[in-house]
Amino acid sequence: MKLSPSIQALIDALRHLPGVGPKSAQRMTLHLLERDRPGAQMIAEAIETALAKVGHCNSCRNFTELPVCEICADARRDQGLVCVVETPADVMAIEHSGGYRGRYFVLMGHLSPLDGIGPEQLGLDVLQQQFSDNAPREVILATNPTVEGEATAFYVSQRARAVGAKVSRIAHGVPLGGELEYIDATTLAHALSGRTAMPDE
Amino acid sequence: MKLSPSIQALIDALRHLPGVGPKSAQRMTLHLLERDRPGAQMIAEAIETALAKVGHCNSCRNFTELPVCEICADARRDQGLVCVVETPADVMAIEHSGGYRGRYFVLMGHLSPLDGIGPEQLGLDVLQQQFSDNAPREVILATNPTVEGEATAFYVSQRARAVGAKVSRIAHGVPLGGELEYIDATTLAHALSGRTAMPDE
Repeated sequence: MKLSPSIQALIDALRHLPGVGPKSAQRMTLHLLERDRPGAQMIAEAIETALAKVGHCNSCRNFTELPVCEICADARRDQGLVCVVETPADVMAIEHSGGYRGRYFVLMGHLSPLDGIGPEQLGLDVLQQQFSDNAPREVILATNPTVEGEATAFYVSQRARAVGAKVSRIAHGVPLGGELEYIDATTLAHALSGRTAMPDE
Repeated sequence: MKLSPSIQALIDALRHLPGVGPKSAQRMTLHLLERDRPGAQMIAEAIETALAKVGHCNSCRNFTELPVCEICADARRDQGLVCVVETPADVMAIEHSGGYRGRYFVLMGHLSPLDGIGPEQLGLDVLQQQFSDNAPREVILATNPTVEGEATAFYVSQRARAVGAKVSRIAHGVPLGGELEYIDATTLAHALSGRTAMPDE
């Protein structure tokens, strides 16, 4: 059966969403057309607005509608502390944890020479310039604990050390509330080798 | 952390999609903005087009961009056979099975008086008129095997019998390839009570 072309086009378009296959896309399409046309209209308008307005912060490269994002513009933030992350989602996660009051730098990816992603694509020239203009006290590397993430962290650490900044890596190990029994072997090995001294009472 | 308003608006809008919670909506939003802006544009345009063009077939109430859908307009289809289903997805599923060459009538729901869905909301007045104008040879009831679906099937069956049509219900039982061990008890009881005679060799 040939579906009407604009229904098929919507099913195909929705497959651009991450984690949405042909069946889900069909279910979403029929749901929107059958039961939530105002919702569909809202999605279309929200996409158009976001595409038109959202760009990157000139300072930290995070998503923002302003030339400089709210975090970078916040003078109460510790300007001497820079946390380097891979994606805006990482910024959200760290902000949500509530334990950080410094600035960020968002790479929008990680070094991956095979995919043509070098230092320039990650804005590392911009970061280097910021280091030179205004050397931070400490640079916290919060890239993901993957091969590419570690390589990226290493690259950034060298640039940070060159301007005399202290360089740290966020701790990797057993998550709080995690049971050793269910932790994967690599994490557990990492947690053992990265053990810290028990503070004296 | 306050997200920029148009990002937050897109996250909220995407929650209108079925099966999408706050976390998925955030992931979808960041994915579209970071990695697939052309895809996002396609989704917005496909929604606008579908909302503008897709309406209901004047004859069977299925989704179509035409006044009368392709299935209803197809003269090679058996006009004396009408399959009554709840949703356009059911039409797709039956068409996909390849075993049916009659017409359809799509209720766009089932009788549910508590939600204000009576015969008129399901277009049953239209169906009644079609029965009177052109009595079908057979009406196949393919509503879902739920309380509401059965009630709806019963309602339609009475209207169909009134014009002398043969009325049938699609078979419910153990799915092909299903193992008895894993079939739920209700289905199994239904399959037993609805057993058919083994054809002679």
